[in-house]
Amino acid sequence: MLNLEQLGQNAVKAKIKLATLTTEQKNKALCHIAESLEKYSASIIEANKIDCKNGKEKGMSAAFLDRLSLNEDRIHSFAEGMRAVATLPDPVGRILEEITRPNELFLQKIAVPIGVIGIIFEARPNVTADAFALCFKSGNAVILRGGSDAINSNTAICNVMRNALSELSLPADAVQLVEDTSHESAKELMRLKKYVDLIIPRGGKRLIQSVVENATVPVIETGAGTCHIYVDKDANLDMATDIVFWAKTSRPSVCNAAECLLVHKDIAAVALPQIATKLQEKNVELRCDDTSYKILLGKISKQNLTHAADDDWGMEYNDYILAVKVVNTMDEAIDHIRNFGTGHSECIVTDSKETAEEFLTQVDAAAVYHNASTRFTDGGEFGMGAEIGISTQKLHARGPLGLRELTSMKYKIYGKGQLR
Amino acid sequence: MLNLEQLGQNAVKAKIKLATLTTEQKNKALCHIAESLEKYSASIIEANKIDCKNGKEKGMSAAFLDRLSLNEDRIHSFAEGMRAVATLPDPVGRILEEITRPNELFLQKIAVPIGVIGIIFEARPNVTADAFALCFKSGNAVILRGGSDAINSNTAICNVMRNALSELSLPADAVQLVEDTSHESAKELMRLKKYVDLIIPRGGKRLIQSVVENATVPVIETGAGTCHIYVDKDANLDMATDIVFWAKTSRPSVCNAAECLLVHKDIAAVALPQIATKLQEKNVELRCDDTSYKILLGKISKQNLTHAADDDWGMEYNDYILAVKVVNTMDEAIDHIRNFGTGHSECIVTDSKETAEEFLTQVDAAAVYHNASTRFTDGGEFGMGAEIGISTQKLHARGPLGLRELTSMKYKIYGKGQLR
Repeated sequence: MLNLEQLGQNAVKAKIKLATLTTEQKNKALCHIAESLEKYSASIIEANKIDCKNGKEKGMSAAFLDRLSLNEDRIHSFAEGMRAVATLPDPVGRILEEITRPNELFLQKIAVPIGVIGIIFEARPNVTADAFALCFKSGNAVILRGGSDAINSNTAICNVMRNALSELSLPADAVQLVEDTSHESAKELMRLKKYVDLIIPRGGKRLIQSVVENATVPVIETGAGTCHIYVDKDANLDMATDIVFWAKTSRPSVCNAAECLLVHKDIAAVALPQIATKLQEKNVELRCDDTSYKILLGKISKQNLTHAADDDWGMEYNDYILAVKVVNTMDEAIDHIRNFGTGHSECIVTDSKETAEEFLTQVDAAAVYHNASTRFTDGGEFGMGAEIGISTQKLHARGPLGLRELTSMKYKIYGKGQLR
Repeated sequence: MLNLEQLGQNAVKAKIKLATLTTEQKNKALCHIAESLEKYSASIIEANKIDCKNGKEKGMSAAFLDRLSLNEDRIHSFAEGMRAVATLPDPVGRILEEITRPNELFLQKIAVPIGVIGIIFEARPNVTADAFALCFKSGNAVILRGGSDAINSNTAICNVMRNALSELSLPADAVQLVEDTSHESAKELMRLKKYVDLIIPRGGKRLIQSVVENATVPVIETGAGTCHIYVDKDANLDMATDIVFWAKTSRPSVCNAAECLLVHKDIAAVALPQIATKLQEKNVELRCDDTSYKILLGKISKQNLTHAADDDWGMEYNDYILAVKVVNTMDEAIDHIRNFGTGHSECIVTDSKETAEEFLTQVDAAAVYHNASTRFTDGGEFGMGAEIGISTQKLHARGPLGLRELTSMKYKIYGKGQLR
């Protein structure tokens, strides 16, 4: 088993080569690797069976097993994702700015690869292929540290990709997998500052907390989303109902799903029953503050109507549960979001443009929506083509992390002997 | 004495107000504060005298005392710096991108303040005024943690600025100084993740290392600069001599000064004696590899010609000392820079455009120069007007940190009830 120090050194060697590849070389390689994934899908599926068997024996839930398991179709979709990345514009070499200074010094600020990216993720083996494709296209070497549940699948996918790179005489170390899936290996990776330029954790709160606590390598935090929808007194009720219903129930497990509904008091008596009734189509449990509880009592089944506890505010349920609160003013809604939001996606439903603009300006989050579902916070929906996660921090990139967000920059400066 | 938790809460309250100020309000405030600094300069100078007295008693060096001491002229220059920031474009509210998606969702990516910035710095009291001006103009609240040597000066400057803000009914907590100058207070500040969005350390290697090791708040590393100049075989010798001389001796204490000279073997026998002789005007000590030592033996005084030890490569001398090495190829120079550079500023002197372009592409640093001194890496020289440091890391900002680099971004998204 290679140690992390060795992986780091390998990645640094690979990144030097990757930074010099042309767009055509990169695209050709991605298509070749996609083909290899399909060609060798049997070996990947075989490895995946071991993971699934182990998962079953460990008593993994059906939902979890479903996310873990691979078949021809799923591997085909990895390959198609990789081909899609090949069609996206190359983010490297973009000219971000050009300035000629009064002393005739010519400055060119250009996009360059970040270098070596470490990605720490949990069960889903698709990350192995997806993350590689985005890192490779943006000229970065990647070190992947996946969870133990998918280690056989990840290893198989990684080996196919490495072999395919070698077939093209490209550095196989463009993608490396940490075989050791202990907590120690994750910690070591996030402290491998000598070789690694960026760590992206993809997973739950505990993983992200551990990275923030322990990393010495710069981190982009992703994924934690407690999204709010504020229904203003001037809201179109039908629109509000549809947006809340859709944002809560279309896919409750994801980070851009709504977790908390805030309703203006002037509209609450009418809006809440209508929205709550619609949510009963998906049997959503409503955890209510006193005012909304009183309004909804008798309007929906008692089983789905509960009193919110203190820790319901700010909770990311990832389930068919919604916290509900009546606010006296929009400022109260904004304050609530400030206190309990995670800076991911926040929404106002209102017909008043002024009110909307005030909300969009005051609320500090990666994405703030007027009259649209929070579920749109997504690389594909934003036109980036693919993403590696949603940044909820303020430095470097906020919102979906696409190819451009996986680049750094440098100044090339052309002189004629200027000395200052 | 306020504790850090309290300072954090105050800063968060202030940042909400700061984010809503108009450009005119901010500029007016900066001019008013500048005036106040001049008006109350006597009280600042009085406080500074205590710091200087303490410094003398502690045996502080003359150079250090000089950097610490304030007089009317220096305070006037702080004020002028603040007025200059008032004239710069407001970085907040810039539209970075606009997209209309096929589903008619309209996305606007705009620049917003980062929020609360913590700055940990060492002796120079000018940072108190300079850092505040840049943070304030970019809509951020700042918590300053200066060193103990300047605590009385920093407190006096901070109080004048806070009073001036209050006079305009603006939040005084836009700028707060941590009165406790212990290592513990610095550590606490860099872990105040609940309130602080960014830490910028300004100081020596030890400070930056401590921040990297301990911070949970995102960090922009600044300042460590081991800059190299590579004199290619096709260099114009007179230009090379001037660039090296100027980059080494115009101000050796700063991070963009040259620390290491790499010379191509084909030109070394002619170039080295000429450059070394010129450097003797400033009595520069040359720490040489074997080949350059042999070339220079007998050409300059023996006192300034020494053998380089292993740790001379990569050393930031901040003094009239230069490491010197002869390389067989440009690739060897690039490898040396890769191994020993700090990603700050690197330079090639050559008349060959192809060679220059190859160097500028291969070398991974914030600023890469063709035929110009590394000393140009500076916010003023880059046309930013002012800077808060030079970032040597790859995320968010690289090179001089001006006003734009002190902003984050968010997506405002305008819909018509889109549900996905």
